[in-house]
Amino acid sequence: MISCEWLLGCQTAPGELPREWFPASVPGCAQKGYARARHWPDVFWADNAKMYDGLENLYWRYRTVPRLPEIGAGERLYFVAKGVDYEFDILIGGKTVFSQEGMFTPVELDVTELLHEGDALEVLIHPAPKRAGAAPHSREEADQSVKPAVSYGWDWHPYLVVLGIWDECGLELRPAARILSCEPHYTLDGARRTARVHFETAYTGAQPPIYTVFDPEGQIVYQGEETDFALNPVRLWWCNGQGQADLYRWSARLPSGDTREGRVGFRDIALQMNADDWNAVNGTRSNPPMTITLNGRRIFAKGTNWVNPELFPGTITRETYLPLIQLAKDAHFNLFRIWGGAIVNKEAFFDLCDEMGILVWQEFPLACNNYLGTPHYLKILEREARSIVRRVRRHPSHALWCGGNELFTAWSRMTDQSLALRLLNKVCYEEDPFTPFLPTSPVMNVSHGYYRFLDDEGQDVMTVMQRKKRMTAYTEFGVPSMPEPEYLKTFIPEAELFPPRPGGAYEFHHAFNAWNGTENWLPRDILDFYFEKAESLEVLVRQTQWLQAEGYKAIYEEARRQKPYCSMALNWCYNEPWPTAANNSLVSYPAIAKKALRAVAESCRDTCLSLRIPRFDWKPGDRMTLEPWVLNDAPAPFEGCECEVTLIVDGKRTLLRKARFDSGAANANVQGEAFEIRLPADCAAPSFTLEIACAAHPEWTSAYTLLLRAKEGRVSGSDTK
Amino acid sequence: MISCEWLLGCQTAPGELPREWFPASVPGCAQKGYARARHWPDVFWADNAKMYDGLENLYWRYRTVPRLPEIGAGERLYFVAKGVDYEFDILIGGKTVFSQEGMFTPVELDVTELLHEGDALEVLIHPAPKRAGAAPHSREEADQSVKPAVSYGWDWHPYLVVLGIWDECGLELRPAARILSCEPHYTLDGARRTARVHFETAYTGAQPPIYTVFDPEGQIVYQGEETDFALNPVRLWWCNGQGQADLYRWSARLPSGDTREGRVGFRDIALQMNADDWNAVNGTRSNPPMTITLNGRRIFAKGTNWVNPELFPGTITRETYLPLIQLAKDAHFNLFRIWGGAIVNKEAFFDLCDEMGILVWQEFPLACNNYLGTPHYLKILEREARSIVRRVRRHPSHALWCGGNELFTAWSRMTDQSLALRLLNKVCYEEDPFTPFLPTSPVMNVSHGYYRFLDDEGQDVMTVMQRKKRMTAYTEFGVPSMPEPEYLKTFIPEAELFPPRPGGAYEFHHAFNAWNGTENWLPRDILDFYFEKAESLEVLVRQTQWLQAEGYKAIYEEARRQKPYCSMALNWCYNEPWPTAANNSLVSYPAIAKKALRAVAESCRDTCLSLRIPRFDWKPGDRMTLEPWVLNDAPAPFEGCECEVTLIVDGKRTLLRKARFDSGAANANVQGEAFEIRLPADCAAPSFTLEIACAAHPEWTSAYTLLLRAKEGRVSGSDTK
Repeated sequence: MISCEWLLGCQTAPGELPREWFPASVPGCAQKGYARARHWPDVFWADNAKMYDGLENLYWRYRTVPRLPEIGAGERLYFVAKGVDYEFDILIGGKTVFSQEGMFTPVELDVTELLHEGDALEVLIHPAPKRAGAAPHSREEADQSVKPAVSYGWDWHPYLVVLGIWDECGLELRPAARILSCEPHYTLDGARRTARVHFETAYTGAQPPIYTVFDPEGQIVYQGEETDFALNPVRLWWCNGQGQADLYRWSARLPSGDTREGRVGFRDIALQMNADDWNAVNGTRSNPPMTITLNGRRIFAKGTNWVNPELFPGTITRETYLPLIQLAKDAHFNLFRIWGGAIVNKEAFFDLCDEMGILVWQEFPLACNNYLGTPHYLKILEREARSIVRRVRRHPSHALWCGGNELFTAWSRMTDQSLALRLLNKVCYEEDPFTPFLPTSPVMNVSHGYYRFLDDEGQDVMTVMQRKKRMTAYTEFGVPSMPEPEYLKTFIPEAELFPPRPGGAYEFHHAFNAWNGTENWLPRDILDFYFEKAESLEVLVRQTQWLQAEGYKAIYEEARRQKPYCSMALNWCYNEPWPTAANNSLVSYPAIAKKALRAVAESCRDTCLSLRIPRFDWKPGDRMTLEPWVLNDAPAPFEGCECEVTLIVDGKRTLLRKARFDSGAANANVQGEAFEIRLPADCAAPSFTLEIACAAHPEWTSAYTLLLRAKEGRVSGSDTK
Repeated sequence: MISCEWLLGCQTAPGELPREWFPASVPGCAQKGYARARHWPDVFWADNAKMYDGLENLYWRYRTVPRLPEIGAGERLYFVAKGVDYEFDILIGGKTVFSQEGMFTPVELDVTELLHEGDALEVLIHPAPKRAGAAPHSREEADQSVKPAVSYGWDWHPYLVVLGIWDECGLELRPAARILSCEPHYTLDGARRTARVHFETAYTGAQPPIYTVFDPEGQIVYQGEETDFALNPVRLWWCNGQGQADLYRWSARLPSGDTREGRVGFRDIALQMNADDWNAVNGTRSNPPMTITLNGRRIFAKGTNWVNPELFPGTITRETYLPLIQLAKDAHFNLFRIWGGAIVNKEAFFDLCDEMGILVWQEFPLACNNYLGTPHYLKILEREARSIVRRVRRHPSHALWCGGNELFTAWSRMTDQSLALRLLNKVCYEEDPFTPFLPTSPVMNVSHGYYRFLDDEGQDVMTVMQRKKRMTAYTEFGVPSMPEPEYLKTFIPEAELFPPRPGGAYEFHHAFNAWNGTENWLPRDILDFYFEKAESLEVLVRQTQWLQAEGYKAIYEEARRQKPYCSMALNWCYNEPWPTAANNSLVSYPAIAKKALRAVAESCRDTCLSLRIPRFDWKPGDRMTLEPWVLNDAPAPFEGCECEVTLIVDGKRTLLRKARFDSGAANANVQGEAFEIRLPADCAAPSFTLEIACAAHPEWTSAYTLLLRAKEGRVSGSDTK
């Protein structure tokens, strides 16, 4: 692709021209380019992001006067734009030659006859879509467009509605004999030893392409003109924890040299019924299937909800994605749910997921709104959805389509009859029928929430998960924390740092009043329930991080203990688009692991020991019943082991129990015998730790640090672990 | 249509010819023609239907040598067959000119050049589809075809897999200038006063047709060549109980005289969320919408499940349908669920429903099987589904598409991911997007069952409905009874008549071992619980009819009391394909109202009084709490009334209570004040009646006859009411 030098300007009406031009990054974001040109201060600091308010109502004009390559006989010059956000015209010499609404449908425009040396090539982006009549500054504004709703504001995202050329863009000179499209399809035989490959190719010129397929070691396993051939034996693509994410490379090359290349991973995927679920609901329908089956193997999906990793998605590169996906892989995750409020990620995201074996649950850009099925909306949605499916279906990591986030809820009010969702089901059926499709999340017997350490009835997450929850899948749940003080100092003015309070930078960065009008993400009610008022920012942060780490451990491990009835645990949320002052995220912007991520990584080890602990909050002398478990998601049988459960208080270790685990099947847990313990009556420490360990496998060790109200009251700040 | 004289014969291989020919009824059923030719005895008598076993494995050849009309210049001769069951070839002069799998896709074959005077025109029907590997004589045999599963045997249908030319068939001479297709579409404005009509027409010849539209009185309200025009004011089509089922007639006529005609009813329909349902399910999805909204008005759907009215659907005519639909209208029903095991009915059915204002929930031919999405099955299903939708969508009575019966259950094992159901959603979205689509029945929070007077825990239907059931829709429930003794004598040999026992005609006609291996439909356990052994057939029949009548009253009325949370009550089942010895049906074959139908008709009056009674079974001196209600589904407000609740024992009337009902809104119930009564302690009658009546509106009176175990034991046969 021949990239161009772009200038950018803004105007208030389509017929105007910008008063001034400034250099533009392409791909990028119009508002970010504008801010850079005007030397605006750091968008992350305090409430600087407010400066961007209203820029989304302007027209943004990108302009380049490209140096044209020499066009040989039969060659064609294309202007290619993989993504322009959101509604736009393409102009050559001031004349509109193409218009489109939709940021996910690539443009491939033959400009051979249209574009001459010295002509200005322009992309004129219209103001951001806002539905007439929608409440201003609300996500409702997005409910008649296929623009991700998140930039209209969320409880962890400011109102900053981005526009711009957000993905790769440039000119391409293509030979007379050229490949127009090329995609490999395959079917696996019943034993999954043979892949029957079929290349679907369109090309110009007399001669077909030569196809070459390389195995994961780079050895050629097929070369020839045949579009249909078998590979045997074929190596399967597996997700993280279940095997190698083996990828084959392929190329299709015409004698003219025009070449398409790509990768393919051989696997099949399905959603199957959860264990015991056929008869779960008497007299009415059974629960929908929620167990991912990869290459015939039922998988427990451990993962997380992915949100936009940048306020300005146009600036995302492979380097943005890489550390985030690596952290997820290291946390033993095997599934990202790409939440419907977010963008459909760039190719580099899926490439990395293909390589690292992270399955992708991809939602369409619908979230928490009632997207009414008006003719115009359905027309744009259908084209955008087809474009999304045709791009993403090629990736072996892609596991699941979903209509969008929380659409069958009181705050969205879409239903099974909503035309937009019926359309998406249809498009997926037509374009990618063998990939499962969910209308939304959650579906029946799948839950979103709870999102705090204590629920509305004052029960902690341990109790809630063990006593109140029995779902086939937990596709959202969360416990918030604050990031480290040093990090907070990068965007909260010093005068506001401690104690945090509403009304300033903490609130603008979501610690207060971010959701439901309550202090969810820096929950003073919950902190006050356990702790005396923190005397420093450091102590406060430690308190929230303690609750978040133990809360997430409790949820992931209890969800795993509910296997095989339960088959999925995805916390809300993984990452952030900018620095938040308090959030349920596991990773602070841009890719800084919170303490809880380390805890979650332990809870998600493919094989680990686990203790079912009734609750978080204890007093000296309390009795409690502990259940030891082996959580095993590994594809190998578990051979049995001896383990020890130890109480650690003030650094002092007391052996509570020697326990024996029987052997177990691959991908199956083993439950040990429950036993009762009594906490020492004379203990003054603010916390204690329970550890379960196996001498032969120290890598399986798990430990839980729980609250001890030694003084029959709240734990003081300085005591906090 | 020029009808033909058909002969019929059978053969064991496709290349053979029949050894003998006999006259065939067309439309009709091959096996029935064969039986008639062979003078087989009445198929209904005893187990005579067994004689038909195996005939479905033959090839059936229909043959005619038609007298051809004179074909003028430009005229074309068509062979038209609206339905051939199931897989078939059309041969002319012994040569196959057309083949099709599927009984719902009409054939329109241009035979102008193919068919000559003296040529034999043949329809060769292949053996009935049976999936290889399916359990013999089971409905599984139907799980890879689009043939209604019912003829493979059901608990009220013998195994008799019909084949034949089952709908109209003949030659048609069409002029050179002819209409190929013509369908009116319309949209209503927001006030539903104006219909914007659009005729979608394909025709040959230079001149367009003239369209004429007649209002319900037969007055011309539009005439002209324009395909798009407005009608204002337009009269709406309403279902039974909500207004007039006003129908407009239309014609499209070419100068050549070729004409298409039809009717149109103007209405819009939707499925909306049930009351309070947005927040019904915390943390997971809301229940799916189940309230039918007709012309913006929320309707309580009172109706029933329709099954094939004949073993041989090819013999069905308008006269078959008419009395059945009239009885349903008289019972105040407004919805038929056309169960997915059955055929999609002939046009006369929908015409009558259009006229009588009975809404139609139409299922596709999938029932109680796992219809795997193999390429061949999906191909046939898609074509058949499109044919069904394009025919049925024209009818104003058509309210709802549904994938089929009980597919998300342990005995069917289809899921939301099943390709067949995703395909049906797609086809309906494409062909008829504004009609609601359900994947199956039941969906979430909708129930099928219970089907007996006592449930597995021994609770009677009154208790079950009041204490255990709170569904948005009851789309199947049932209580069985036997038909009248005189009727039984028409198909049960006299020696077997009393007492009924398994192993003979009673069992073959479904009284015993018909379902789940238990005696569900002549339930001796339940009869023994209430009654001493019946000393005669008459007494036994009365016992079952008493339970059925009071059971159905209890269910329909309690479902109505649960309005608006509940919006639908459809009993299983309405009718029968042949005489059954015991069944949940309300109407015996062919159209004989059972006693329960009269009871149900009372419970379904648009406005009526109702008593909530805790249970069926009482002893002298018992106390009970009664709740008086006005059930009001009428579109007019309820003005309030005084009423009296009376106890009737042995013909003696005792006033229990005068009650006052406040006024209420249209289509809304009014609940009165509950009160306690005490039954007389000294009563020896086997039953008592509770009546609620309003002197000013005797047509609202309701009465309930309940069991009185006067002797502290079972009620003797001769005592039975």
